[in-house]
Amino acid sequence: MPAKAILISIGDEILYGQTLDTNSHWIAGELDSLGIRVNKKVTIGDTREEIINQLEESESQADIVLITGGLGPTNDDLTKPCLVEYFDTHLERNEEMLKNIRSLFKKAGREMSEVHEQQADMPAACTPIANNMGTAPGMWFERNGKVIVSMPGVPYEMRKMMSDTVLPKLSAMFIKDAIYHRMIRTVGIGESALAEIIKDWEDSLPSHIKLAYLPSMGTVKLRLTTSGENEQTKKEVQEQIDNVLPLIKKYVYGFDDEDMEEAIGRMLKERNLKLAIAESCTGGYLSHKITSVAGSSQWFNGSLVPYSNQLKNEQLQVDSKIMEEHGAVSEPVVLALAKNVRKVFKADVGVSISGIAGPGGGSEEKPVGTVWIGYSDEKKTVAKKFQFVRDRNINIGYSAVAAMNMIRINLDKD
Amino acid sequence: MPAKAILISIGDEILYGQTLDTNSHWIAGELDSLGIRVNKKVTIGDTREEIINQLEESESQADIVLITGGLGPTNDDLTKPCLVEYFDTHLERNEEMLKNIRSLFKKAGREMSEVHEQQADMPAACTPIANNMGTAPGMWFERNGKVIVSMPGVPYEMRKMMSDTVLPKLSAMFIKDAIYHRMIRTVGIGESALAEIIKDWEDSLPSHIKLAYLPSMGTVKLRLTTSGENEQTKKEVQEQIDNVLPLIKKYVYGFDDEDMEEAIGRMLKERNLKLAIAESCTGGYLSHKITSVAGSSQWFNGSLVPYSNQLKNEQLQVDSKIMEEHGAVSEPVVLALAKNVRKVFKADVGVSISGIAGPGGGSEEKPVGTVWIGYSDEKKTVAKKFQFVRDRNINIGYSAVAAMNMIRINLDKD
Repeated sequence: MPAKAILISIGDEILYGQTLDTNSHWIAGELDSLGIRVNKKVTIGDTREEIINQLEESESQADIVLITGGLGPTNDDLTKPCLVEYFDTHLERNEEMLKNIRSLFKKAGREMSEVHEQQADMPAACTPIANNMGTAPGMWFERNGKVIVSMPGVPYEMRKMMSDTVLPKLSAMFIKDAIYHRMIRTVGIGESALAEIIKDWEDSLPSHIKLAYLPSMGTVKLRLTTSGENEQTKKEVQEQIDNVLPLIKKYVYGFDDEDMEEAIGRMLKERNLKLAIAESCTGGYLSHKITSVAGSSQWFNGSLVPYSNQLKNEQLQVDSKIMEEHGAVSEPVVLALAKNVRKVFKADVGVSISGIAGPGGGSEEKPVGTVWIGYSDEKKTVAKKFQFVRDRNINIGYSAVAAMNMIRINLDKD
Repeated sequence: MPAKAILISIGDEILYGQTLDTNSHWIAGELDSLGIRVNKKVTIGDTREEIINQLEESESQADIVLITGGLGPTNDDLTKPCLVEYFDTHLERNEEMLKNIRSLFKKAGREMSEVHEQQADMPAACTPIANNMGTAPGMWFERNGKVIVSMPGVPYEMRKMMSDTVLPKLSAMFIKDAIYHRMIRTVGIGESALAEIIKDWEDSLPSHIKLAYLPSMGTVKLRLTTSGENEQTKKEVQEQIDNVLPLIKKYVYGFDDEDMEEAIGRMLKERNLKLAIAESCTGGYLSHKITSVAGSSQWFNGSLVPYSNQLKNEQLQVDSKIMEEHGAVSEPVVLALAKNVRKVFKADVGVSISGIAGPGGGSEEKPVGTVWIGYSDEKKTVAKKFQFVRDRNINIGYSAVAAMNMIRINLDKD
């Protein structure tokens, strides 16, 4: 039987619909990949009674209880006092945590006050967990073979704490047969079309290898899972991957943890090519994705966001007459943008995006979601039209993925 | 006392971290704006025992229980049989629902099978809720003045059902006193520093007005909540806002639903000014934030992401000698970038960012997280140095917020 976990998110702002709880989603995915089963996720408010009741109920139902939120320095944060009450313990100033907090403030050049020092007061019954990204330490409680952990609600603080400390400790305590996952990452094909192509392969999978489809924003990840990470299972899963790859090769951009933007970076770096971007309707989002990868200055020269037609003309020599005749959202304009940004920005590959993200600006002929994407390298300059249907920010996201896919396809062709 | 609600999401895919539950977030926001208090949100798997137990617990703790998910036509969907068992009732074919489902299949040109007809079998104890977007009808149960509603997990089906049927019915049954929220949005000050400044004011708040601090990425929202939306409470909350504003005025960028990027857009539009951006280490993220606001072409001309020094020089005439002498991350470089992007991009306001986002590129003198931000308008060109401490993407996020804050402060000065 896999270990059972319950996740508790604490915060009025989640109950009031003001903050979307992405923490429990992330934690659930991490625990799942370890082989720990999440039985329940609960969100409650910053209320003493609710917190105490939920702790009691959860400890009786699960082996592992992970709590996020309610650790701030202000009076509305109640998680720490509730844990002190629940474990019938008391607070003690922890010098190591205090040192951490002090050094954090020093680095940021900010002054520290009494409330910040109080964040180093830890329940005597817990093992404190250092927070390298913020001031609220985490707390690890253990009794009767069960574990209760409290972490801050700030996502990057929680994630760092989980990755550095909590997941390794949980794994050591609860995992005998590690779950083994492999991921095939696809783009440019929908979940059900993909399922149809690989139906026979999927039906022939041995029952101990589970397949999951994980769609997100124009990409679909295929996850193969089996329990027991050893040479035998690794080989077996690799064989299944080798079997399915020929069917879907043209949609596969990478494997396992590699994001789309990381794959594009790797492909450019391998080929020793530099990228330049001219993106209009996506307003900098594609450049942001590309540069979110560490080391991206090795394959990225720069980009222009020519929101006005004047900039398209003055900075990238797009003929004003062409824009008048065809509109800024048109094939000749993205062809010119891709080609010229490549030349002007001294790059090897140029990519351009021009579209109608919405909500305004649509017409009968070019409705909201119409997006032209251009690609240019030394050998060719091409363009493709996309029709997305959703709202402004969804259109921006889909356009960036489509542009990266166009880079991938064209680099693979050469 | 406001009516209490519990939200239950049913689905293994949420527990395993494969699907992010946005339904309960949306429902919580809708109920909150009606004045119904969500006390708890729970996610459980597709398991008979968990569903029955959760129904019992929730019905005993709340006035309203809203369930999403588990209504599909396949065998792993258990919500309907569990509700039949829980309410000790039986299924009856409902002709009206059957008609709906048939017409939906006809519209889509798809053939209907027996499993789809079975979706019109409804528990005799419920009032069926028509689903105009999909095949699974909803179910409205009432007993002892409490309401239990089951809806599909597909977000747009659920939202339509909520808006058309569930919210109006709940409002009619439960709403006397709506909840009233106001939000003061601040930037450039931490949660605890803010708490210290407004301590006396916070201590003097009447007990029926609740205050919450909602920090996120360099901003802190102060939320004032009271129950009963009427002229009296509105006036009372406004008076409290008026009392605290003089203490924190220089940190306040907006109120209620207005995001930082929306506030900047509004300020530029009000002043009839156009913005241009030259952002290096943030790689397009600031431009993305600015253009994520609909209508931003009214106040945004465009931006350059000059990742290489060559582009800084060729596109924006930053003297190569200055870059050699001071480095690209320096005061003279961001001053030149801000001033020149304003001129070259024909804008009224120029903003520039140059920094070391990390993980590489840091030095003793300029560690990772060192960021210079420049601002230029017709009257002045200024720059400020920031020291952030966290990882690449966090530094990018904080830099964008700091740059928007610099725009706000300087526009306010003029």
